[in-house]
Amino acid sequence: MMRYISCMCAVLGLFIFCHIANAGGGAGSNWTSSQANVSDDSAPSSETVLPVPYPSGFRTWQHVKSMVIHHKKHPLYDAFAGIHHIYADKKATKALLENKRFPRGAQIVFDLFSIRDKDGAMTESSRKFTAVMVKDDKKYASTGGWGWQAWVGGDRRSPALKSRSEQQACATCHEEVQSKGLVFSQWRD
Amino acid sequence: MMRYISCMCAVLGLFIFCHIANAGGGAGSNWTSSQANVSDDSAPSSETVLPVPYPSGFRTWQHVKSMVIHHKKHPLYDAFAGIHHIYADKKATKALLENKRFPRGAQIVFDLFSIRDKDGAMTESSRKFTAVMVKDDKKYASTGGWGWQAWVGGDRRSPALKSRSEQQACATCHEEVQSKGLVFSQWRD
Repeated sequence: MMRYISCMCAVLGLFIFCHIANAGGGAGSNWTSSQANVSDDSAPSSETVLPVPYPSGFRTWQHVKSMVIHHKKHPLYDAFAGIHHIYADKKATKALLENKRFPRGAQIVFDLFSIRDKDGAMTESSRKFTAVMVKDDKKYASTGGWGWQAWVGGDRRSPALKSRSEQQACATCHEEVQSKGLVFSQWRD
Repeated sequence: MMRYISCMCAVLGLFIFCHIANAGGGAGSNWTSSQANVSDDSAPSSETVLPVPYPSGFRTWQHVKSMVIHHKKHPLYDAFAGIHHIYADKKATKALLENKRFPRGAQIVFDLFSIRDKDGAMTESSRKFTAVMVKDDKKYASTGGWGWQAWVGGDRRSPALKSRSEQQACATCHEEVQSKGLVFSQWRD
């Protein structure tokens, strides 16, 4: 249960917070925000980042659950330290509630805030990033049937994943919950 | 900001967790769940607990924000230790978004979970209680224009506030944010 969200993608976090521009290799190395969906030579390749839209309006989606990663002894501390919330859109919520397969278009958001820890209480400070996984078996066949992206500071002009290999890393981590459709979070009342 | 929720009512928490049957005095002392809205002599009095309905379906309401009270040095630790989430129904959400007066019927929920702290991460464990404040200037004139109640373990058969004085204690604590309509939580994106 502690790992109910585990990593949406540990590599994602490393990319965001460590700014390792070339960690994913390939087309991502020369990427800028305006080139998010275009490879270096303007021709699609296996390294071309797959376009994933920013999840507009996710703050009004269903709150699924929350978790706090607060100590460096947690294996995902470097990537995901903070208070995070999981939100699901209507399609994803229905699948979670009914414990069924996620349909095409279903979206789940992972919204991470840094922690303000003071006087015995942790509150949400600034947003570190907003990440999404969106289901489409055809469009995202090469990344586990889900599209993956994150935006630093929640800024839709600042996508963090810069190559398909970075997106594939997300899927690889989520394979731990293959039986749950690659989704760590389960419904609670 | 640390006190953005502060106490929905410190006395509420004490009643729930310390089981101080007579702390509020008056009719509450002989209260049972089946007598929640009836005073000792079956005649309304200033001590008769005001009926407040359980907020059915609140889990689908707008998630406003969350907070973790994790150490006894926090003044509300005894009452509210845990991970809590604030949810608002449509009326309350609109008022929060527009920073306007809360209309009649607006409801805000405070949903508290105990903490499972393991390997550097805090996750939600069992539900400690679900509390609500519902706006009605006439019906709840004696308790700040809001009706207050909480249910131990989130069980609608187990209301926690047993007298009007206990409900008044909630309002008294919330007077700290009189300028915000007695609501601690403010909207964040």
